[in-house]
Amino acid sequence: MAKSAAPSGTRDFLADDLRRRRAAFTTVSDIFERYGFDPLETPAFERLEVLTGKYGEEASQLLFKILRRGVHEASGKPDLALRYDHTVPLARVIGTHGAKLPNPYKRYAIGPVWRADRPQEGRFREFVQCDIDTVGSSSPLADAEVVLALAESLDALGVNRFRFLVNSREALRGLLEVYGVAEENGDGVLATLDKLDKVGAGAVAKELVDERGLDVASAERLAEDVASDDPDLIRSKLATNERGQRGLAQIDSLLELTASLGDRAVFAPRMVRGLDYYTGAIYEVEAEGFPGSIAAGGRYDGLVASLGGPDMPACGGSIGIERILAMQDTGDAPAVGLDVAITVLGGQAELMKLASELRAQGLRVGTYLGSSGKLGKQLQWANAQNARFAVIFGSEEQESGEVTVRDMVSGDQSRVPLAQASAYLRERLER
Amino acid sequence: MAKSAAPSGTRDFLADDLRRRRAAFTTVSDIFERYGFDPLETPAFERLEVLTGKYGEEASQLLFKILRRGVHEASGKPDLALRYDHTVPLARVIGTHGAKLPNPYKRYAIGPVWRADRPQEGRFREFVQCDIDTVGSSSPLADAEVVLALAESLDALGVNRFRFLVNSREALRGLLEVYGVAEENGDGVLATLDKLDKVGAGAVAKELVDERGLDVASAERLAEDVASDDPDLIRSKLATNERGQRGLAQIDSLLELTASLGDRAVFAPRMVRGLDYYTGAIYEVEAEGFPGSIAAGGRYDGLVASLGGPDMPACGGSIGIERILAMQDTGDAPAVGLDVAITVLGGQAELMKLASELRAQGLRVGTYLGSSGKLGKQLQWANAQNARFAVIFGSEEQESGEVTVRDMVSGDQSRVPLAQASAYLRERLER
Repeated sequence: MAKSAAPSGTRDFLADDLRRRRAAFTTVSDIFERYGFDPLETPAFERLEVLTGKYGEEASQLLFKILRRGVHEASGKPDLALRYDHTVPLARVIGTHGAKLPNPYKRYAIGPVWRADRPQEGRFREFVQCDIDTVGSSSPLADAEVVLALAESLDALGVNRFRFLVNSREALRGLLEVYGVAEENGDGVLATLDKLDKVGAGAVAKELVDERGLDVASAERLAEDVASDDPDLIRSKLATNERGQRGLAQIDSLLELTASLGDRAVFAPRMVRGLDYYTGAIYEVEAEGFPGSIAAGGRYDGLVASLGGPDMPACGGSIGIERILAMQDTGDAPAVGLDVAITVLGGQAELMKLASELRAQGLRVGTYLGSSGKLGKQLQWANAQNARFAVIFGSEEQESGEVTVRDMVSGDQSRVPLAQASAYLRERLER
Repeated sequence: MAKSAAPSGTRDFLADDLRRRRAAFTTVSDIFERYGFDPLETPAFERLEVLTGKYGEEASQLLFKILRRGVHEASGKPDLALRYDHTVPLARVIGTHGAKLPNPYKRYAIGPVWRADRPQEGRFREFVQCDIDTVGSSSPLADAEVVLALAESLDALGVNRFRFLVNSREALRGLLEVYGVAEENGDGVLATLDKLDKVGAGAVAKELVDERGLDVASAERLAEDVASDDPDLIRSKLATNERGQRGLAQIDSLLELTASLGDRAVFAPRMVRGLDYYTGAIYEVEAEGFPGSIAAGGRYDGLVASLGGPDMPACGGSIGIERILAMQDTGDAPAVGLDVAITVLGGQAELMKLASELRAQGLRVGTYLGSSGKLGKQLQWANAQNARFAVIFGSEEQESGEVTVRDMVSGDQSRVPLAQASAYLRERLER
């Protein structure tokens, strides 16, 4: 059967899984809509030059590139590639449709992206990303809306015990100024500090000296300051640093505007996002039962321009929806069954009419499509379909113009006139 | 801006279009679910060998092939391709998951497929196909369920004036027997007869002689018989032909089981589907305002096996959902606006709290994210958002603990205590 499997790193979604996934996506998109975000769907692939050079060398290796077609196929060269995320397509869309879009443009995207990562446990080559971004606003309200929309989504997805760790790229940069780190050295130093959780303060301090050129005393104190995760300590260090004060104001403003989250949003000086495109408030969400972060985001005012779009302020975040869905896998949601399974022992035309009436009432109805004329076999089928009721229309019933309705849970049976069967079944199902 | 456009033959779906498309897909999937069909979603791409040789030479040219990755990229060879339809993936899934699937397996698939057709007016390289199929049943009830589900979907999509033209591959084959056409010549003769609407009976008869080897008299009478579209004539011709009688029984059975469609389903002897994988009842749907057919399907008992799956009877159909959506384009569905637009002149924290309360009631709420402190500018924004109401919280309101609620249609304004604003707005919106 291996020869017939889905490609490595991809999945077939059968009914139960797919319904659960769709329900989760709808839950999130309904919330994003209430926050005034618009849906956006871009093509599965982009022109190769739109994607090339946007993700760094390592990521570029992970693009699924599409071969040129027709007479050009023999060249062996690609001209398109499957989208790697929703962010580069967003920057491209703003370039393409700028004038038609609302300003600011608040959009969400929930859909598959493709990365040729080495397939491994829980890692896929086709997976759904769930992004929400506001492009064209510098207001701290824009950051707060994103945070609240993410928080409400996590709640609605059943990830209740979470905490937003908030920091600011400007506060971090201010702290580097306090320790005399040169501006052009900042991204590298922050990338090193981002390793605190993995390697500890000692190793970080060593790397700051060896690779980033800090003196030993500064390196050790900087690593300790950040590792302390102590807001008061950081506030006092930044008391006279202008840039740091600006960063603290970003943090305080975001926390004030998301006060409804209570202690589920906190200033966490230790939280350093290594990605160098962030420019203001940043956050990661830690949640009980999930290693690492389950959602993250921040302000990235220069990113849209750097991705080929116009120069506009922007902020946004995303939810690790696949990881949340994977956790839910262990749950045992009941499979969707038939409301009514119609057995077929003759009288097909009458039964199709009954099925139509039941479906018109919104019920999920199946008719027996197998070849057995035995009622027992057909009831086995109804049972396998998780049917709530079965309808039997044997020769006796056909003569008397009735049907037998069987309760597939209790096994009780009742005779009902055919003409009243749909009303009877609806009433039984509404109980 | 051309440099930033979506790839040739693809589209970006912005909010209004995307909402309309999603609504149509939900309409159809809700109906398919009521008929007891399960959703299935397969990966965007399949291994190349799964797709190769399944579509014929011409179609294989239209595959989007994906280049091998990493060290293999330099080979210039593909190993994957984007799915071309939902049928080959269905056959593959039955091979992969056979034992886990219900039997019969009733599934629907609504999702994009990719074909490198020459882009032209109304033709796309990425477009949604909407398929419904039952695999593993020979029952005529299976065919009838598909027809009724398609008909109900067309109705629900607003394509009301339609007609199912029903025929049977067996009836057509019987007719060929009557005219002495050799079995192995049958597919070719039917492919020629399929051109009747395009080229007329005379040209068809000529091709039957020149290319299919019929004698002139048989060719002319066969072409005339089919062109007549006269059920009684065909019934009389098939009166003593066993295969033809079997075909007529398939037609009559399908029409009897779909009697609820009335004269929206008819035996149409002229309707010949050129595709040679059909084996039993076949149908096409013609609808007012749509050239060609808007839906089609039939029984294809040998297809799953020929596509690499197990040998199982099957039937199914599909709806031309992109064409229906394209027709709806001319309609003017109102854009989704905000229920409440919150202007921001200070008091951000209170306003975020109000926004949260309103969103918790399911309302669509946006806050002003621009940089203007002028109310007039902010109300212009509210208007551009199609907002029903705007909330104003200026210095006067902040002092008295009230908000001003502006009806964006009438221009009327009311002062409401801040604490009662969400209840007041909900009530106004429910009127």
